[in-house]
Amino acid sequence: MAENLVNFGILGCAKIAIKLARAINLAPNSILYAIASRSLEKAKQFATQNGLPETIKIYGSYEELLDDPSIEVVYLPLPTSLHVQWAVLAAQKKKHVLLEKPAALDVGDLDKILEACVSNGVQFLDGSMWLHHPRTMKMKELLFDSNLVGQVDFIHSTSTAKVPPEFFENNIRVKQDMDALGVLGDLGWYCVGAVLWAKNYRLPNVVSALPAGVTKNSAGIVLSCTACLNYDQDHKTVAIIHCSFFSYTSMDLSITGTQGSLHLKDFVIPYQEGSAFFDLASPATFMDDQTGWNVKTEKVVVDNETPQEALMVQELARLAQGIKKCGFPPDNRWPEISRKTQIVVDAVKKSIDLDCKPVYL
Amino acid sequence: MAENLVNFGILGCAKIAIKLARAINLAPNSILYAIASRSLEKAKQFATQNGLPETIKIYGSYEELLDDPSIEVVYLPLPTSLHVQWAVLAAQKKKHVLLEKPAALDVGDLDKILEACVSNGVQFLDGSMWLHHPRTMKMKELLFDSNLVGQVDFIHSTSTAKVPPEFFENNIRVKQDMDALGVLGDLGWYCVGAVLWAKNYRLPNVVSALPAGVTKNSAGIVLSCTACLNYDQDHKTVAIIHCSFFSYTSMDLSITGTQGSLHLKDFVIPYQEGSAFFDLASPATFMDDQTGWNVKTEKVVVDNETPQEALMVQELARLAQGIKKCGFPPDNRWPEISRKTQIVVDAVKKSIDLDCKPVYL
Repeated sequence: MAENLVNFGILGCAKIAIKLARAINLAPNSILYAIASRSLEKAKQFATQNGLPETIKIYGSYEELLDDPSIEVVYLPLPTSLHVQWAVLAAQKKKHVLLEKPAALDVGDLDKILEACVSNGVQFLDGSMWLHHPRTMKMKELLFDSNLVGQVDFIHSTSTAKVPPEFFENNIRVKQDMDALGVLGDLGWYCVGAVLWAKNYRLPNVVSALPAGVTKNSAGIVLSCTACLNYDQDHKTVAIIHCSFFSYTSMDLSITGTQGSLHLKDFVIPYQEGSAFFDLASPATFMDDQTGWNVKTEKVVVDNETPQEALMVQELARLAQGIKKCGFPPDNRWPEISRKTQIVVDAVKKSIDLDCKPVYL
Repeated sequence: MAENLVNFGILGCAKIAIKLARAINLAPNSILYAIASRSLEKAKQFATQNGLPETIKIYGSYEELLDDPSIEVVYLPLPTSLHVQWAVLAAQKKKHVLLEKPAALDVGDLDKILEACVSNGVQFLDGSMWLHHPRTMKMKELLFDSNLVGQVDFIHSTSTAKVPPEFFENNIRVKQDMDALGVLGDLGWYCVGAVLWAKNYRLPNVVSALPAGVTKNSAGIVLSCTACLNYDQDHKTVAIIHCSFFSYTSMDLSITGTQGSLHLKDFVIPYQEGSAFFDLASPATFMDDQTGWNVKTEKVVVDNETPQEALMVQELARLAQGIKKCGFPPDNRWPEISRKTQIVVDAVKKSIDLDCKPVYL
């Protein structure tokens, strides 16, 4: 049985690693095989505190974990500035790479990682969990197969989280040498990803940050940002993204098209595991006397036995098995999604750096 | 009994007049007393087709209706270009004015109307029905009294309606000599009004249309528009408005603040009469392991026996009675709301005319 399970190793004991350790063991085709921290003590503590089984290997350095030939996939929840170094090394050691988002500090860095994955024949996947939720699949089906929303005119996406004051002092997400993209990398990555997803991964023509929407700390790290992504090909689409460390939790995605609209308020992390929903208005018109709507918004519920993060792990383990057992090539689709997301995140950053001038792609 | 009812006259037989005729008779303190069209035939046809009682007076000219001393309030569902002429004359004839939105083509025109109302001691109210729904009152209470959302960081408001192709040829809303504000006046008025409402009627500092969001017809009338309204005083707020004749029905209002968020998708016209709802997330945080939300969005339901348009009529009739019976002065609050809305609509229009340059208020 265990030989059919893909062995995962976790490189770094960040908080998000707890969620992934659980996900790796929930996914039916993977198992958590090893964890590593820069100190053996910290890794042991992480294993004990999170009730990991004693059979798990514990390493006191990242290199040792990467040298373990039993490990097939490495999950890297490291500060973004360390992604190139460790993801490239993981690929060179023939490990498939599950890289926490933002994938890299810029597309130049990401390309180094993706090239290492290609030349070593390993799969790359970034940690955008929501793309693996069956709700996302269902929405995609309605958007692209059934065309229930028609052509997309307007997209609104937010990802905000109110953080405690000490976050602004200590957290890696506001440090130039750790996560120089700030809120753009941490939360904006989701908004940009949602817009690209809704446009079936077409890149926008122009990206502009909105002057009043940008707040930075004294080191120049972006703490909140509103930006406009414009599409001119085929059908004109305007997308607004808003990410902030100041507002309360929000993760809205609204897509308005020529035939209907689609709304959800928890697109990044569903309100609860096991079941999620979205609202679909299509076709909705007014009653003749304009006293109400002819068709009310429909609540579309999508159940999922397995949480989205475990489905993400399952997808990567499936691809890893296909490469190993059937000689399949790595799936290009996932690194392409990451690369396009990075290109647009970079463009928002560039627009901010240019005092909110438009950046053409 | 009838002497306690305020007599309304309707000036013009536009489609929206059907809704208001019903509302005037649903409101407990008003009655529809007369209608006028530019031709007696058209006015008679309107009365018959809409089952109005035979007791209603029917006039074949606007002047005759305004000369009827029994009429206390006049509702004007006229093309915007005719507002100044007829609203000023109505005020001069000592009629209270219920003016369909957009109130005027620009604030200069609106000021002529408001000055006529002030100097003649009559009440002014524009036709923004949603401001009179008890759901709006409930949201206001939670926003401003209970402070459940905290300080407002981000507002998103849309008003879109997909119109048939012939609309673009014939409708008054796309004609330079009728409704030169186009979609900005017809639908954008609501979005701007919602932002001002959410900011307790503070004006934004800067208004900018977003280049890719603007579509005009060959006559230069705006058919779709996305714009950004920025607030810098006290607390930085970014508001995005989007109005369009191309997208399917949407009327979203989302308010995200430091303590929570508030969402509704039918703010202009509720899905149905009798009951409406909005979603409130406050306080919503993630569970420690980030697998879900600690508090789900709460659905707040607000019942209303009387439809919002009848509540609007009721408010105006109440004010008219106060002026007549108790010698109260007209309520300044309503014309101020209209005037601020007009100022911001004008600023969006100006930004569009300046190739989307920012307009400072």
